[in-house]
Amino acid sequence: MAGEFALIERLLGQAASAITSQSTGLILGPGDDCALIEPLENGEAWAITTDMLIEGTHFLESDNPEDLGWKTLAVNVSDLAAMGASPRYVTLAASLSAKDIDSGWIDRFFGGFVSCAQAFGITLIGGDTTRGPRAFSVTAMGTVPAGQALRRNGAIDEDDIWVSGSPGLAALGLAQKLGAAALPAALSSQASLALHRPQPRVALGLRLRGLAHSCLDVSDGLLQDLGHIARASGLSATLSLTALPAAPIDVSKSLWHQCLLGGGDDYELLFTAPAANRGTLSALSSQLGIPLHRIGQMHSTVNAGTIELLDTDNRPVDLSGICKGFDHFA
Amino acid sequence: MAGEFALIERLLGQAASAITSQSTGLILGPGDDCALIEPLENGEAWAITTDMLIEGTHFLESDNPEDLGWKTLAVNVSDLAAMGASPRYVTLAASLSAKDIDSGWIDRFFGGFVSCAQAFGITLIGGDTTRGPRAFSVTAMGTVPAGQALRRNGAIDEDDIWVSGSPGLAALGLAQKLGAAALPAALSSQASLALHRPQPRVALGLRLRGLAHSCLDVSDGLLQDLGHIARASGLSATLSLTALPAAPIDVSKSLWHQCLLGGGDDYELLFTAPAANRGTLSALSSQLGIPLHRIGQMHSTVNAGTIELLDTDNRPVDLSGICKGFDHFA
Repeated sequence: MAGEFALIERLLGQAASAITSQSTGLILGPGDDCALIEPLENGEAWAITTDMLIEGTHFLESDNPEDLGWKTLAVNVSDLAAMGASPRYVTLAASLSAKDIDSGWIDRFFGGFVSCAQAFGITLIGGDTTRGPRAFSVTAMGTVPAGQALRRNGAIDEDDIWVSGSPGLAALGLAQKLGAAALPAALSSQASLALHRPQPRVALGLRLRGLAHSCLDVSDGLLQDLGHIARASGLSATLSLTALPAAPIDVSKSLWHQCLLGGGDDYELLFTAPAANRGTLSALSSQLGIPLHRIGQMHSTVNAGTIELLDTDNRPVDLSGICKGFDHFA
Repeated sequence: MAGEFALIERLLGQAASAITSQSTGLILGPGDDCALIEPLENGEAWAITTDMLIEGTHFLESDNPEDLGWKTLAVNVSDLAAMGASPRYVTLAASLSAKDIDSGWIDRFFGGFVSCAQAFGITLIGGDTTRGPRAFSVTAMGTVPAGQALRRNGAIDEDDIWVSGSPGLAALGLAQKLGAAALPAALSSQASLALHRPQPRVALGLRLRGLAHSCLDVSDGLLQDLGHIARASGLSATLSLTALPAAPIDVSKSLWHQCLLGGGDDYELLFTAPAANRGTLSALSSQLGIPLHRIGQMHSTVNAGTIELLDTDNRPVDLSGICKGFDHFA
């Protein structure tokens, strides 16, 4: 069976070859965090992304509706952040039951959605509601100066690999939610917050324009998403075990590596930048109050897309036990 | 229980009051066929619309996937046409089962979707696929010179009311599909085509710029959609029974009036225009090969949104037996 990525690529590939573009303003088609289209006489390009969230696949019936409303928008804002775009507009389509309306569930969902929109200065410009199984679809639009968007295919040989914030924390929250991990109280609420109220790295994305060669947001898992950068850029990547963020107290190394490297839903920015920018990035980290971890390096290769994790003796660590990201069709 | 329109209006009203717009480019928010946003230094506004289609609500499991793919895009293109916009870009999110992928169902769906995109010069710029019950969400974007978009709130006292093409035909096709009508062969295939392969009136919408005072596409039923124009414009409307398109041979008057006035899914353009434009509109009808029916008139009123159908003696016809449009939550 085809995986999700294969399906998207196959269908969009069909479309690209079938549709003769009459849209001269298309800068970047499907395959990155956002598409880029350019207003005809304007220096700003539009960055556009779309996502669908389905009950049972992306969220549970029992999930807190305010959190779900926040996250439904936040994951799309994160795609804009990963392109270095300023969030501007959003549309929301919702499939709901009568009970969702009568019980006030949708009002609570919408409260969370609006909180996120307010937090990031986004205007809701359109919507659609229909009866059906609980599902939401969001299309978010942002603006970015043409030529400055952060793409995944721009990594260069010897670029440093960086990741922001607290990667792995959301996956730890999920492990706890599913009963696979018991966390101490402080870490527990932190991990739960990371899972349910992800903070898109918009301010960071804007500042990475001109500093990073490539960027995406970690939604499928660090290893899998780094693979996307490597493949798109025609490079390989090595990660250094000692440079990875350390496991929180009371979390086993093995669980931590699974969460950090394989867990999705982080919405941290994963980017590459030349070594010359290390000082600037450290200063930026302090300014924004966002940790930036330098975790590895890109390399020219004959096997684009390969990733190695090296231990203290520079020996490859076996990655086979680490989930290779989240595939909705797997 | 709140109906679909009430829900959208309530939620979007909450959002509008809650979110302080930082988007100075917003021309028109939710409530019309499309939102309008304006590139900062550009004369063209973007018209944006979103729709979600759910199996069991909008389509049946047994529906032909090529037709469904066509219609999924066509209903959004119709919203652009109703604003007088040129279709440009589209995103597609799909929720599917593994079987939909393995059986080739999604390829057939996508074939129909791409046919529609090609027919209207639209570029697919992004997508999302996920596992779940069959559902699709489309966001379509078009361009229209700022200030020339066809809105539903622009009707003026004494405007003529016009409707394009073959309103009622799609509803007749649905009645047949549901076993509520038996149609002669030629009409049967025509009605089925209207239902499954609606033709968005893009060329007409573009030509109505500067001619029509208000416009929308008939998706919920002629009476209900005319009510939207009347309410938004603060007017009432009268329709003339004798001016309505006549029932096809072998179709009872009562079924025909239900289909024509209450049936949805037509995607014809319903618009108002001053009497001075009658000649120009007749000539336009011939040029485009699209019938344009002048079916009534708008009036100033103290009861905005009221609609009357007058018989040959100018007496109101009882409309209570006619479905008042399609409400997914009714």
